[in-house]
Amino acid sequence: MRGVRLKLTPVSGEPGFEPLVVLELASDIKEEAVVWLLSRIRDPQQNGGAELLVEHLGPGVRPQEKENPNLFLVGASWQRLLSGAEDLGLFKEYSDGSMRGFTCSNKHNFKDFTGDGDSFLSMAECQHIIKHELDTLRAREETHVPGYPQAKLYPGKSIIRRLQSKRILIQMFPLHHKEELKRLSFSWYQKVRLSLQPLDSIRHYYGEGQALYFGFLEYFTFALVPMALIGVPYYLFDWEDYDKYVIFAVFNLVWCTVILELWKRRSASLAYQWGTLSRKQAFEEPRPGFHGVLGFNPVTGREEPLYSNAKRQLRIYLVSLPFVLLCLYLSLYVMMVYFLLEGWVLSIHDENPTFWTGVLLFIPSVAYAVVIEAMNLIYRYAAEFLTEWENHRLESSYQNHLVLKVLVYNFFNCFASLFYIAFVMQDMVLLRQSLATLLITSQILNQFMEAFLPYWLQRRRNKKMVRKVQGRRVLEDKALPLAEQVRLEADMSTYLGTFDDYLELFLLFGYVSLFSCVYPLAAVLVVLNNITEVYSDAFKMCHVFKRPFADPAANIGVWQLAFEAMSVIAVVTNCALIGMSPQVRAYFPHSETQLILWTVAVEHGLLALKFILTFLIPDVPKHIQIKLARIEFESLEALKKKVCLFVLG
Amino acid sequence: MRGVRLKLTPVSGEPGFEPLVVLELASDIKEEAVVWLLSRIRDPQQNGGAELLVEHLGPGVRPQEKENPNLFLVGASWQRLLSGAEDLGLFKEYSDGSMRGFTCSNKHNFKDFTGDGDSFLSMAECQHIIKHELDTLRAREETHVPGYPQAKLYPGKSIIRRLQSKRILIQMFPLHHKEELKRLSFSWYQKVRLSLQPLDSIRHYYGEGQALYFGFLEYFTFALVPMALIGVPYYLFDWEDYDKYVIFAVFNLVWCTVILELWKRRSASLAYQWGTLSRKQAFEEPRPGFHGVLGFNPVTGREEPLYSNAKRQLRIYLVSLPFVLLCLYLSLYVMMVYFLLEGWVLSIHDENPTFWTGVLLFIPSVAYAVVIEAMNLIYRYAAEFLTEWENHRLESSYQNHLVLKVLVYNFFNCFASLFYIAFVMQDMVLLRQSLATLLITSQILNQFMEAFLPYWLQRRRNKKMVRKVQGRRVLEDKALPLAEQVRLEADMSTYLGTFDDYLELFLLFGYVSLFSCVYPLAAVLVVLNNITEVYSDAFKMCHVFKRPFADPAANIGVWQLAFEAMSVIAVVTNCALIGMSPQVRAYFPHSETQLILWTVAVEHGLLALKFILTFLIPDVPKHIQIKLARIEFESLEALKKKVCLFVLG
Repeated sequence: MRGVRLKLTPVSGEPGFEPLVVLELASDIKEEAVVWLLSRIRDPQQNGGAELLVEHLGPGVRPQEKENPNLFLVGASWQRLLSGAEDLGLFKEYSDGSMRGFTCSNKHNFKDFTGDGDSFLSMAECQHIIKHELDTLRAREETHVPGYPQAKLYPGKSIIRRLQSKRILIQMFPLHHKEELKRLSFSWYQKVRLSLQPLDSIRHYYGEGQALYFGFLEYFTFALVPMALIGVPYYLFDWEDYDKYVIFAVFNLVWCTVILELWKRRSASLAYQWGTLSRKQAFEEPRPGFHGVLGFNPVTGREEPLYSNAKRQLRIYLVSLPFVLLCLYLSLYVMMVYFLLEGWVLSIHDENPTFWTGVLLFIPSVAYAVVIEAMNLIYRYAAEFLTEWENHRLESSYQNHLVLKVLVYNFFNCFASLFYIAFVMQDMVLLRQSLATLLITSQILNQFMEAFLPYWLQRRRNKKMVRKVQGRRVLEDKALPLAEQVRLEADMSTYLGTFDDYLELFLLFGYVSLFSCVYPLAAVLVVLNNITEVYSDAFKMCHVFKRPFADPAANIGVWQLAFEAMSVIAVVTNCALIGMSPQVRAYFPHSETQLILWTVAVEHGLLALKFILTFLIPDVPKHIQIKLARIEFESLEALKKKVCLFVLG
Repeated sequence: MRGVRLKLTPVSGEPGFEPLVVLELASDIKEEAVVWLLSRIRDPQQNGGAELLVEHLGPGVRPQEKENPNLFLVGASWQRLLSGAEDLGLFKEYSDGSMRGFTCSNKHNFKDFTGDGDSFLSMAECQHIIKHELDTLRAREETHVPGYPQAKLYPGKSIIRRLQSKRILIQMFPLHHKEELKRLSFSWYQKVRLSLQPLDSIRHYYGEGQALYFGFLEYFTFALVPMALIGVPYYLFDWEDYDKYVIFAVFNLVWCTVILELWKRRSASLAYQWGTLSRKQAFEEPRPGFHGVLGFNPVTGREEPLYSNAKRQLRIYLVSLPFVLLCLYLSLYVMMVYFLLEGWVLSIHDENPTFWTGVLLFIPSVAYAVVIEAMNLIYRYAAEFLTEWENHRLESSYQNHLVLKVLVYNFFNCFASLFYIAFVMQDMVLLRQSLATLLITSQILNQFMEAFLPYWLQRRRNKKMVRKVQGRRVLEDKALPLAEQVRLEADMSTYLGTFDDYLELFLLFGYVSLFSCVYPLAAVLVVLNNITEVYSDAFKMCHVFKRPFADPAANIGVWQLAFEAMSVIAVVTNCALIGMSPQVRAYFPHSETQLILWTVAVEHGLLALKFILTFLIPDVPKHIQIKLARIEFESLEALKKKVCLFVLG
């Protein structure tokens, strides 16, 4: 927040109420359910409530029939937010510059804590605290939501999650802060500049998960610059006669190992600075869709649905895994059909070239692209359905399984044809052509689908809303009154997380690390893509989507693993490409066996070296290791002192 | 201990003093140093002392000139031991069956805690506590050991470690407990039985590090049984015509991955049961030999020698690494000379076979074995010297670097010749012969050098001592009085840790996993070796060596990594052996290239599968994960309650 707060006319008479989070309830919700929910939210903590402030949002300027009247604004007192921060184990900067878990009793020793503390917790943190408090609002006895006998509640069960799964609560989202958003978007992408992204401000406004994504995007772009710089002369000065790519492949190979190791360090630095590195996660609650027979959780002792792990494993290995393998086989089959068609069309064109056969030449590629896109879409739905059906207890485990499924399939779809061209057809000219086509088209399509289309839709809705309001009075600065602002944001699309963004980066990383030695311009294209990606992603975060809740991530999670797996594949691929190059073949004129054995030996050596490097480069920079060790040491010492006092006293 | 304690006539008038640890000071130590040291040990904790009991050991029955008079016995009061246990963060079984960090304030909630608590802490634990308290006895100001101006002390510096490095303190060792030792050795190896080793009793007497070694030895032996069972019919029923080893190699490959993963789980179970799995280690102090410029440790803020990490890295990469590589090269060179000599001798014998050329045939092998042994010995000294010179701050880091150096060299020495025979000479008959020779000779030599030789030496010393004592009076039950017992133990060899034992297992694991498909009896030989190894190791622990201090290990440390590296090499080797088999070659009669490509593809697939398996099999069994999560959850809940009280109060 850096000293600014929402300056809004309070919706109710209570002074100082700052709306942070919006709850949208079903428009046909029963009265008693609303009364019950609001009282649970307002009740003091010793009565099992959340002790938050909540107000009903009044009707808009010109209320319509369709408008949902059941929008509620949630806020909290300053004291409540602080105790919530302690509850969450939020790490803040201490007076000595280290990051420590915030405690109310120790609050004055934290940097930036100034009595009223307006700038101590960022708005994103406040919203995260409120979300946490709402999520952990639990039923006290076995009952049901008043007015909804089918919405059963068990002691210790999260109320909000049950309301969400029964569609009584339609959505819960944090409010944007127009002023801060304007400043952020200006420093982020509106001014033309050569500076880095304002990662701290992004983290401040969107939380650590988002900031880490943009940090990774930026890091990845910079890491590609050397590749791009080497690639350009290769391309321009005729180095690109496909025979001399050995040096490039070797460079590639070292590059993709080193940048991933260094990213781990950079990520640890960022996470330390943002206080998420050593934060302890609270015990994770089951995800809303999780179901099972009611029993006692062996860890918490609370009553909650239980689902046997063995059953889940059976579903994964006997249904999901065969399904994924089948899809991969299908994808391979479609690819083979494509290559057959391609060959067939080419032979027709070569036999008797006319205008129509020239057009025909494009048809297999176009058909293949369309089929691939359709298969991708269907597979994505199937993967989501299957992962839901696997009935994972934790959101994180659900996400990991979904990411893995989608990742493997996308990898296959994108790269199978390239591998086929490179290693079965051994046609480097075609490989280069396909790579260029894939990179350029996917880049253009993505940017369009991701940002401009949703923006255009949003803009239309926005204009309608402004026009509606302007019907009654002239607005100063085009600022909408709160009621309209909230309704407008409620209508915005929901940001579904960084999944698709990471997936895109993953595929780009694949193109560069696997095949850029054949097409050295790939790195240049990816750098250009990433630069526009920063702008379009920033733009869509600020203007197209609802504000997402902050996600206190300490690293990029399963994606680190995915990128590392890709870099291992890159080592193998590059070695094979080197082994196939005429240059290297020239060293073994008489024996192909010798050539292959040497290539394999070198590849094994490089893989071993890669693993040794992974071990040798510490994941956390030394100075942060020392800071973490110091905090650990101090807490042990404090414990010891307590013991001494006990023994002596 | 299980309810028994040393029943000894107290050496001093103080009743209930139980000697646990012996300090042997230099025989020519200055009087003032002794007085100062004893007072520091006896001083109460608030004065910076260790608050332990310490007694001078009287002279033996028939004191000799050579006998060192400066032997001291250290013990502690029951209260002091309990507070020491809390200090160390010892985990004990709680009343609900889980393992928790012991705290004095909570002592009655621990299982087996009975007021006087004689059986609550084992003797090994008490000795470990005393060692910890002595080790952390620190100098209060900048001074020197009284009487030794050259033995400087700085505030916060461990006194005992400085005395040790200046050879004022000759040794510090825990006392054996004759009665318990007798019972342990009876249940361990003296009765003929088909039961498992008494791991809990071993842990009880020797600590977790030793018990994990014996647990691993036992596990490894059982894991080998299926291999041995398959190996015997292979050998007996003429399956061993070297052509049909494909099935065996495939089995081998799965086996070595699976057993290591399962061991991780077994090790976690044992460590959980023994309370070392989730124990937090205190901040590690610098090892005695560490030196550097005096400065402030960035973590503790205490004054201690500092040594720049960059300098250490330079020493490692510019001196140690080249030295190791040079030694490996030398070892390779010696091997090549051996093969040349072998070939030359064989050709002489073939040309004109006489008795003398028959003798000559053995000479290269014998010479090679002798040279290898000598090189091993010299290298070991060099490795220790270099690792010392690298000046590692921590004992653990010193150990890791030493293990790595010795491991790589030993691996090379043992396996280079086998690899050469298998892949360069491709002579499976010779490979089989060499493997058998290596296995059988190393087995016999090891058992002899490890147990029987030291035992024989010890027995001679022992008899001398008994004869000396018997000169004065007839001993009942041949039990020696305390003074003689302590002196006898002080003279015993010091057990240097599990390093050599693990190294031996590592090499045996290598023989089996790499080449047993060529010589299926290898597994049988290793099983036999391991059974005798259990007995000889148990025997040497009980009768040859001084009792070692307990080492609260949670796993087998760097050895897990070493075994896993070996299993990766085993996958590669077995794939290569399969690819070379006539059976597989028969599938590719026309193209060697095809054969190699297929072998490499299968090998990559298997390696990938191995890594996926490593990910999929959880390192800690589910039920222990749940127990650990419960403790974590409870401590977070307790924290929250504290917060609530604070907020409401």
